[in-house]
Amino acid sequence: MTIQIRHLDSAQPDFKQRLDTLLAFEASTDEAIEQSVAAILHDVRQRGDAAVLDYTNRFDRIPGGAASMAAFDVPQAELQAALAALPAAQRAALETAAARIRVFHERQKEELRGFTYIEPDGTLLGQRITPLDRVGIYVPGGKAAYPSSVLMNALPAKVAGVAEIIMVVPTPDGVKNQMVLAAAAIAGVTRVITIGGAQAVGALAYGTASIAPVDKIVGPGNAYVAAAKRRVFGTVGIDMIAGPSEILVLCDGSTDPDWVAMDLFSQAEHDELAQAIMLCPDAAYIARVEASIHKLLPSMPRADTIRTSMSERGALVKVRDMQEACDIANAIAAEHLEISAEDPQQWADKIRHAGAMFLGRFSSESLGDYCCGPNHVLPTSRTARFSSPLGVYDFQKRSSVIFVSEAGAQTLGKVAAELAYGEGLQAHARSAELRLRPAA
Amino acid sequence: MTIQIRHLDSAQPDFKQRLDTLLAFEASTDEAIEQSVAAILHDVRQRGDAAVLDYTNRFDRIPGGAASMAAFDVPQAELQAALAALPAAQRAALETAAARIRVFHERQKEELRGFTYIEPDGTLLGQRITPLDRVGIYVPGGKAAYPSSVLMNALPAKVAGVAEIIMVVPTPDGVKNQMVLAAAAIAGVTRVITIGGAQAVGALAYGTASIAPVDKIVGPGNAYVAAAKRRVFGTVGIDMIAGPSEILVLCDGSTDPDWVAMDLFSQAEHDELAQAIMLCPDAAYIARVEASIHKLLPSMPRADTIRTSMSERGALVKVRDMQEACDIANAIAAEHLEISAEDPQQWADKIRHAGAMFLGRFSSESLGDYCCGPNHVLPTSRTARFSSPLGVYDFQKRSSVIFVSEAGAQTLGKVAAELAYGEGLQAHARSAELRLRPAA
Repeated sequence: MTIQIRHLDSAQPDFKQRLDTLLAFEASTDEAIEQSVAAILHDVRQRGDAAVLDYTNRFDRIPGGAASMAAFDVPQAELQAALAALPAAQRAALETAAARIRVFHERQKEELRGFTYIEPDGTLLGQRITPLDRVGIYVPGGKAAYPSSVLMNALPAKVAGVAEIIMVVPTPDGVKNQMVLAAAAIAGVTRVITIGGAQAVGALAYGTASIAPVDKIVGPGNAYVAAAKRRVFGTVGIDMIAGPSEILVLCDGSTDPDWVAMDLFSQAEHDELAQAIMLCPDAAYIARVEASIHKLLPSMPRADTIRTSMSERGALVKVRDMQEACDIANAIAAEHLEISAEDPQQWADKIRHAGAMFLGRFSSESLGDYCCGPNHVLPTSRTARFSSPLGVYDFQKRSSVIFVSEAGAQTLGKVAAELAYGEGLQAHARSAELRLRPAA
Repeated sequence: MTIQIRHLDSAQPDFKQRLDTLLAFEASTDEAIEQSVAAILHDVRQRGDAAVLDYTNRFDRIPGGAASMAAFDVPQAELQAALAALPAAQRAALETAAARIRVFHERQKEELRGFTYIEPDGTLLGQRITPLDRVGIYVPGGKAAYPSSVLMNALPAKVAGVAEIIMVVPTPDGVKNQMVLAAAAIAGVTRVITIGGAQAVGALAYGTASIAPVDKIVGPGNAYVAAAKRRVFGTVGIDMIAGPSEILVLCDGSTDPDWVAMDLFSQAEHDELAQAIMLCPDAAYIARVEASIHKLLPSMPRADTIRTSMSERGALVKVRDMQEACDIANAIAAEHLEISAEDPQQWADKIRHAGAMFLGRFSSESLGDYCCGPNHVLPTSRTARFSSPLGVYDFQKRSSVIFVSEAGAQTLGKVAAELAYGEGLQAHARSAELRLRPAA
């Protein structure tokens, strides 16, 4: 079965509308999932561990059924054993990736140190940065269990200085993913609990007898996990709810077309809803990439997923020039943006919205997914217009510091009282006025 | 009618439970509001301006009924006229507050400049900071229209470099609040539109013929506005959904009790759900504050609100010592924390969670509410455990920058391929391997 790829041309009169249609993606809200999740969360809040135990035994088909929550705790020794048992090359790769992720995220931490300044009258103002106390990391189980995601979610929290990192990972049929456990060991996760689903989100948010409540929950999950995270938001912090993954390749036609085709595949192989789009001003080059796609597809183990994704949601777009490509890229605000071109920096300077930018033909997205250092948890579905990669800052918060001197209270008090009376808040005004020295 | 204030003592065996009960606040979800908001948002998305016009004429009882959306646009000349017509003292107070807010928020901008570093093999990694393109500021209408909130919401966006700031403010019965319009002029708001409610949130999120869609919506509102913001989250960014305002005063007994009583009032006067709590190790001093409360209450114009709030949700708490007060303050994670004590810095150093800290007896919360410089939009309902004051950073986002050199691709490619094969993502692996030079 061949692959049908959509071709668009920015010169088409209805191009904008076609592009909008292509990009449109709305996570549907499934009422049955919503109700099921609401019931599970309510039950976990009421019955605590007993509820989590019941759901886990049932949904994850735990062989024999666990008798207590203790059965789901993975001892640190087991994490270390998983790490020790890894093939040497795999272990080295994980450790290299972790070291590089740490270095990049340390730079984020250095950037955000807080500040203090003192005004001439002695009033001190500032902003203090502190880490969260305790966070929960959700790691999907089964086929979508990615050790790289353990590193990308846990290490920023670790670098931020979070004291307790609780990782939950479901183990369908009781099967543990050893590479995931090894990644938890490398990342320095405090505690691993083999529970998942809405029940794990509820346990982390509300706490149970065996699990202390966390301050924030991050990490991807299925529709039940996403719905549960939305519902506990406010009780705890959450990261963005991720949509399907996307890549946008801006190409001036100077890169080996096989490379670009494989970069598009690397997004498309994630799942059938993933989106891979190329923008290029060179029609002949677009044809060469398309030929590479047809040539390379049969060799891919995940060819079926790639074919569906590329046919349903992919596109090869002919643009007038690279400047127009940048304008379109800003409208798309892609999760991953590859600028595969000569002197890519000139185009990068024109990009305002993208989760991560991959510059030059050697920066394949897959390098960034695993081991460049920056985070692979990135804003999807155009949310790069207003949100950022997961980072150390997601595990820190700021507090304002205000230390008004007696002299400062004299000038500030009059300003505050004037405005407070204007807003009809007299106690605010009086509170400021009480600090004024009586007129001489 | 006298005021009944709850007394707690940390030595009580059930103290923790009593405190938890006192702090418990859960915004109830009103199904009727949810359905009404869903219908309004759907209608605005379908019919655009026509829907916004209909709802605004109806809900805000616009006299005569506006014929088109143009009627709701407030020309810049009208904003400037409102500013020119303000009493001189009020105008000076607003301008002083704005100048101080700008200075503090410029420091936030300076702190976050992004970074770049180049590795020995020539690979460049970095993080770029860019402002949002267009944001919406929701300002409540009627009695709760606060010009200070206009400054606190708009100025961080302005400092961040947001190109377009669209302010919406409903005008029930067509009445415009002149001080709010003047504040918009001072803050440099791009456009003011006199619409509100879920229809305004929908117009900002989805866009209409007359209103371009924004990237983020901030600012407080009633239950309809809060529900609408939750629903459009994802399409646009939103700030935290604010709960009732709170103050926690840590007192060593060295501050004039009238001052502390008035500080508690300044929170309690906001609304009946506001929460004002004092922690103090000195029982005699607690009695003096209570006496001040009884003495001062009758003089307050908003005495009824203060009485209800203090009776229902306030407390005077006897603690063992200031150290214990700090521990309890960390558990409460208050929006506003006053440390009204000698050498307050020693206690501030023990605080991990608070929206804003007010140190020393001259730092009344009301000074911070209006004109110290830090933002008065702060995390409520214990969310200071994981979130921050509104700031310039809320109107900026980060993009990762990855520019791998040919040499870098050789080492990184092998690491990425090893991990990608381990995760079963072969296109990721091949995409990295294509960049490897053939072995010599």
